[in-house]
Amino acid sequence: LLGSGSPERLIPARVIERKRNGAVLEAQEMRSFFLRYLEGDVQEQQMAAFLMAVYFQGLAPEELDALVDVMLESGERLDLSGLPRPAVDKHSTGGVGDKVSLALAPLAGELGLSVPMIAGRGLGHTGGTLDKLSAIPGFRTDLEVPDFVRIVNRVGCGIIGQTAKIAPLDRRLYALRDVTGTVSSIPLIAASIMSKKLAEDLVGLVLDVKVGEGAFIADEPGATELARTLVGIGERRGVRTKALMTAMDRPLGRTVGNALEVSEALECLRGGGPPDLRELVLRLAAEMLLVGGVETNVKGALESAVRALDSGRALDRFRRLVEAQGGDPAVVDDPGLLPRAPRTAELRSQGAGVVRECTPTRLGYGLTELGGGRSRLGDSIDVSVGFVLHVEVGQPVARGESLGTVHAANDAGLAVGLEVLGRAISVGGADEPPPRLRPLITELTEPYV
Amino acid sequence: LLGSGSPERLIPARVIERKRNGAVLEAQEMRSFFLRYLEGDVQEQQMAAFLMAVYFQGLAPEELDALVDVMLESGERLDLSGLPRPAVDKHSTGGVGDKVSLALAPLAGELGLSVPMIAGRGLGHTGGTLDKLSAIPGFRTDLEVPDFVRIVNRVGCGIIGQTAKIAPLDRRLYALRDVTGTVSSIPLIAASIMSKKLAEDLVGLVLDVKVGEGAFIADEPGATELARTLVGIGERRGVRTKALMTAMDRPLGRTVGNALEVSEALECLRGGGPPDLRELVLRLAAEMLLVGGVETNVKGALESAVRALDSGRALDRFRRLVEAQGGDPAVVDDPGLLPRAPRTAELRSQGAGVVRECTPTRLGYGLTELGGGRSRLGDSIDVSVGFVLHVEVGQPVARGESLGTVHAANDAGLAVGLEVLGRAISVGGADEPPPRLRPLITELTEPYV
Repeated sequence: LLGSGSPERLIPARVIERKRNGAVLEAQEMRSFFLRYLEGDVQEQQMAAFLMAVYFQGLAPEELDALVDVMLESGERLDLSGLPRPAVDKHSTGGVGDKVSLALAPLAGELGLSVPMIAGRGLGHTGGTLDKLSAIPGFRTDLEVPDFVRIVNRVGCGIIGQTAKIAPLDRRLYALRDVTGTVSSIPLIAASIMSKKLAEDLVGLVLDVKVGEGAFIADEPGATELARTLVGIGERRGVRTKALMTAMDRPLGRTVGNALEVSEALECLRGGGPPDLRELVLRLAAEMLLVGGVETNVKGALESAVRALDSGRALDRFRRLVEAQGGDPAVVDDPGLLPRAPRTAELRSQGAGVVRECTPTRLGYGLTELGGGRSRLGDSIDVSVGFVLHVEVGQPVARGESLGTVHAANDAGLAVGLEVLGRAISVGGADEPPPRLRPLITELTEPYV
Repeated sequence: LLGSGSPERLIPARVIERKRNGAVLEAQEMRSFFLRYLEGDVQEQQMAAFLMAVYFQGLAPEELDALVDVMLESGERLDLSGLPRPAVDKHSTGGVGDKVSLALAPLAGELGLSVPMIAGRGLGHTGGTLDKLSAIPGFRTDLEVPDFVRIVNRVGCGIIGQTAKIAPLDRRLYALRDVTGTVSSIPLIAASIMSKKLAEDLVGLVLDVKVGEGAFIADEPGATELARTLVGIGERRGVRTKALMTAMDRPLGRTVGNALEVSEALECLRGGGPPDLRELVLRLAAEMLLVGGVETNVKGALESAVRALDSGRALDRFRRLVEAQGGDPAVVDDPGLLPRAPRTAELRSQGAGVVRECTPTRLGYGLTELGGGRSRLGDSIDVSVGFVLHVEVGQPVARGESLGTVHAANDAGLAVGLEVLGRAISVGGADEPPPRLRPLITELTEPYV
């Protein structure tokens, strides 16, 4: 009677009250509640109240699993059982300057894994892999699932956008959360992420959980809880899941902007590029090999990854990926073919000192101001604009030294971009205590599950 | 931008997030949010999430006042400025066997007050004054406001139902809360009650806040918080408001059921009836005289009330009220004319002992099972059925002694009623420690406002 598991007798208001009061709902009760929502029998306003109650009371593992189950069942799932190599993916919780997937997918594909990556678009201050790929002329991410699976099989990796058919319940819930102030609930974020990743029919999954100013969940305890929640969902379903916590208190690499980031990812695939990007790509590749069972220790896995990157084999793999998905492979060897903004200008340091800060959210929202990011779903973007950083936090700079370059569509954009860059990068006196940065990569210290 | 007060710029999701995070919203922000809800601009699902956030975070006095303001402005208000005597009302938070208003309205009317009582119907386990009055043949509570005001002016009191025109925002919010598990939020309950009472254009208001098993908010801290919140809203608007906490760990009086309760109220108006009912009616009348400024000390006020009751003047006033509202005044002198259930049966004690418990909610829901209460708005009811209690908690009983009588429509009803009565009244051994009962009336010990 009081929200019991049987669908006939479930009274939505009682289920909401029970959650509100901190009860752990039975799996069958959660299931019925969400199935009836899909059927239109539980109203939008009831789900909104339920989600707000979840914001305050959380979800126990069994509740979370029931939710992820219904999300998965609500839609289409990949069938990768025909692939000879273990399917492994990486998911990042989103940051600024994070072009890791572009280099990582072909690298992991080269190393004996199948990488069926379903990626997202940027929103707010964070970028998205699909937007970066759209800087490559001709590259298509709207493939049909069978074509996608064929590409993954042939090339070792593929990258598409989420289709309307994958986890439609997640899409409905996300739209509802967006207007009802319930986006930042850790279990709801975790269920949303995992419902999409688990639809990929994976053997293993590596999570890059960002921490710091530019992360979706900035604080360490929150990010850690998210990481543990994600790993728990994956492991309980038999998907080997590993999370790394990585620094987002500054941007990753030296570029922010879609075409600029593709160019930087290509440098990385040629064995160069900024050290932080290279280190993260190599480590994530190694973890993917471990969860995929291709390697058994991190040292050996890292060595394999280094060889594949430095030999140019990962770059070859990327060229094949671009070609397979309709893109112009000439871009891979000549990044000058990528869209370029017509105007550039440099920001110079007004004094001598030490770079104290480079705030990701300012750069991320600044990219949107330049037209290179979107503030709502459906906005179109200019892939050519963005920022190139010439300094990093902790580095001494001379007066007049170039701190960074703005790439903009016109003079107005340049002015905006220079102001953004000036607010994002702060230079302090050399006598001030050195700025504190998070280590690039940290592991969760306690067992996850 | 982030839910600022200006209606043009208010973003509903940001307002919800701010409340969720424990912020105190500005009055103008609350106002805009609710006005835009009335206009259809804030969606039902957004309001549902907001109300759940309020459940967890509460409302500060200024937020509460802003909500009550919009509720009041959304509808019609009485204009009693033409009445020569101070308008004072009483509101009870709802209980089982509570027929106080039937005796209190004419008593207070007799004592120099105007009592423009807008009453409710019963729902769930609690009864409603309108249902009890419907047991009096011909009695109408669906009067037009001008007719109602004329009756209050002429008789000193009048009792009608809430019209669709009074606080329509409250009706919308209540309907939403009912399906979204947000009914039992103290500030939302308080705003709902006060929006209706403040529409009565009162000088003073006395609140009967029930505490104990059969109360809407059963626990003492919750009921105390509700009482303080109600008093705060009234006093900040310049309405003299006083709250008493009264016992609902057992039913009030000896009857539960609409016609049976009218009969008991008539006994009280004749100077008799159960002592607890008489004590509460007298005390509430005295408090009404104090907040109305007609008396200045509780002793004098109580003495006036006793005289009006014992002289039969309050009963005369009730007769005039019945007549004015279209009812059959003969009922007042011959309660035998009230609807009577065709079948009765007595429950007898199976052993000797002491009455340990008489649970209001069992009797209240039991009345609904007999057909005398409603589980949904709009259900029709049988006013004749109910329970008469022959014992009270703490009283010794002999084996075979009658504990109570069931009044039912048929044999099936009798069987149900006897089972309900048997579960509601428990008799324990005389050697067990005496049952603990709340005092009938307690005052709030700290200043209210």
